[in-house]
Amino acid sequence: MLEHEPVIGGSLTPEIDPMWAHEPNCEDCNACDRELMVGRDELEAFTAGIFQKHGVGRADAEVTARVLVSSDLRGIPSHGVARLGRYLAGIEKGFIVPGVIPEVVEPVPAIAVVDGKNGLGQVVSELAMDLAIDKARVNGVGMVTVKNSNHYGIAGYYALKALDQRMIGVSLTNAAPLVVPTFGKQVMFGTNPISFAAPAAGHPGFLLDTATSVVPRGKLEVYDRNRTQMPSGWAIDQDGYDALNPGMVLRNLVDRVGGGILPLGGRGELFSGHKGYGLALMVDVLCGVLSGAAYGPFVYDMKRNEEKTGHAAPNVGHFFMAIDIERFMPLDEFEARMSEYIGVIRDSEKALDQDRIYVHGEKEFEKAACNAKCGIPLARNVFDNLLEIAKQCGQPAPVSRA
Amino acid sequence: MLEHEPVIGGSLTPEIDPMWAHEPNCEDCNACDRELMVGRDELEAFTAGIFQKHGVGRADAEVTARVLVSSDLRGIPSHGVARLGRYLAGIEKGFIVPGVIPEVVEPVPAIAVVDGKNGLGQVVSELAMDLAIDKARVNGVGMVTVKNSNHYGIAGYYALKALDQRMIGVSLTNAAPLVVPTFGKQVMFGTNPISFAAPAAGHPGFLLDTATSVVPRGKLEVYDRNRTQMPSGWAIDQDGYDALNPGMVLRNLVDRVGGGILPLGGRGELFSGHKGYGLALMVDVLCGVLSGAAYGPFVYDMKRNEEKTGHAAPNVGHFFMAIDIERFMPLDEFEARMSEYIGVIRDSEKALDQDRIYVHGEKEFEKAACNAKCGIPLARNVFDNLLEIAKQCGQPAPVSRA
Repeated sequence: MLEHEPVIGGSLTPEIDPMWAHEPNCEDCNACDRELMVGRDELEAFTAGIFQKHGVGRADAEVTARVLVSSDLRGIPSHGVARLGRYLAGIEKGFIVPGVIPEVVEPVPAIAVVDGKNGLGQVVSELAMDLAIDKARVNGVGMVTVKNSNHYGIAGYYALKALDQRMIGVSLTNAAPLVVPTFGKQVMFGTNPISFAAPAAGHPGFLLDTATSVVPRGKLEVYDRNRTQMPSGWAIDQDGYDALNPGMVLRNLVDRVGGGILPLGGRGELFSGHKGYGLALMVDVLCGVLSGAAYGPFVYDMKRNEEKTGHAAPNVGHFFMAIDIERFMPLDEFEARMSEYIGVIRDSEKALDQDRIYVHGEKEFEKAACNAKCGIPLARNVFDNLLEIAKQCGQPAPVSRA
Repeated sequence: MLEHEPVIGGSLTPEIDPMWAHEPNCEDCNACDRELMVGRDELEAFTAGIFQKHGVGRADAEVTARVLVSSDLRGIPSHGVARLGRYLAGIEKGFIVPGVIPEVVEPVPAIAVVDGKNGLGQVVSELAMDLAIDKARVNGVGMVTVKNSNHYGIAGYYALKALDQRMIGVSLTNAAPLVVPTFGKQVMFGTNPISFAAPAAGHPGFLLDTATSVVPRGKLEVYDRNRTQMPSGWAIDQDGYDALNPGMVLRNLVDRVGGGILPLGGRGELFSGHKGYGLALMVDVLCGVLSGAAYGPFVYDMKRNEEKTGHAAPNVGHFFMAIDIERFMPLDEFEARMSEYIGVIRDSEKALDQDRIYVHGEKEFEKAACNAKCGIPLARNVFDNLLEIAKQCGQPAPVSRA
């Protein structure tokens, strides 16, 4: 089915032109001060091994481990191995079914409609994005929807696969409902991220990877751990008023008593919260409605999904697109234009007290280059959790370099 | 080139199922209190006539008038006939060239690359969206970029054309630079809107049409006229600090001394202003970089564009996409799913003091139905401007019904 050699994991240490002053190096990075550091390869091998102990075949385990560790590597620990326990619980409860073969229907050459059969989200998504890239190479554009899937990790991983082929990549997913619509107070959709990647000359490329909510749930968890009030505009309470107490919002979300995270733009219309709300719906129309997956408040509604599909599962949906730039203009010209655009923004005047303007993805590319060299820093509780999982599985635990 | 009968202007009064409690009617509408009301057909005919007096052929004049008046009809006067004078000035100055024939290249069946030849943005965009729809019907997806164009009116007009064909429609454009990047203080891109439409059963459909900036420039103009301070988070001054004085920001934008409108999410990263910034870049990668148009700060940079293309013109770029839903699932099923999704959001609990949760497009569909019946309300200064234009052209002025 796939006509190109599938890309393994994205080029996380691309060649950087010396014109980019902020090329990845370890000098600015405080990661090396961390207490616990595990090498990328070791962490991937460990994670893949754990999945194999849970009935996942070797190739699928390796894909899933690669996606998870790529998130840690890129400095996004919320979507990395910290989630390993949740994936294993999903397998144990039967929400995630290892070993299934996704079903691929190709109604026209540019499109594929994929049924993930409730397998690991990373496995079906790697396949789906590779398929979108192949289709783009032939048809100029490739578009692939996925239903009956699970959490797929970071959205950006898949867009980055297109970028590595010097294509434009799009990766979208719906997610567990945590976000309220403008003027509402019940969660109606997830943080539904948008990832979009495009290559640039002498630069790792533009890689947007952003939730359509004002903040992710993880941000509330950090504030809760620190016993810190949130800014007004991140979340609302059970009545729809501004909520400043992150612990209360998180408990309300679990108990489903009302309230939740606000869309990008915040509460009401003054700062255009309706725009974030609309973008979240746009993502879900493509990922949930068009794919045949669950949508809105029904994602992770195990009971309803069992009634609809015969399988008690989250029924997460994804959407992938690749665009072959060469059908529009010479690739070198496109990349030079991207590079000029990024450069003019970078060189523009900074606001007072700011010394750098970032383009999306730069921080993560730099962090990845640093972590690939020095090792991936892990939080103490995450590392302890890995030790516990290792013990339960009878597998050697990862060893910290620090 | 076009295989279907081009859709004329979008079904602005679609059939509404009685289940939708808020079907369009005039009872909630205060437009009828307005002083000046002009019938839709009369306003379109007047506007088309004015364009013809300025050297625009009849068919092109009618398209342009239809797009402009559809904005007034839908309750978005900022993009309606209030802009007529600016278009005429563009023609007089040679930025907008009437009568050109757009050049269409189709490298693969699903894609077209269009050169608008600096003609009216509405004319080339109507053609481009019709082409995307035709391509979607054959290939499942149709994708069309446009370069060397001008301001195309409301983004939603074109997405709505796909919706009228029961397809998913996407319409994006770049625009004159008014928005600053996160941590910057010079305008680097426009309000770059995203419009996305999808049909629903018994409902006019989901129609997102939103700038990626926190507010449009028009909002600052309204606050300036009312001598009202803006909320902190809409715009920054020449140093990159929060700006509360809308007049100062508007003057700074004209003088290009620094400062401008903030991306969706506001200043800095606390409310995720970097997300709006990234979405604006995403739009421009597709509209500006990929199409071959100007991008970022170079849109409306007449001098640079003359050097690059030989024509002193804004070189605005657009991106259109249509998706044929039937390639993914039966159309009726998709529309039923959309309807269920919209219904569950509408019926969810409201925040205190709120009595309705809107889905994107509802307000505008209702306003359009009302205005189609009662006439389009015009602000006094807009009406007076039309009278002045009529006088200069020796054409009968529109007559108010009020």
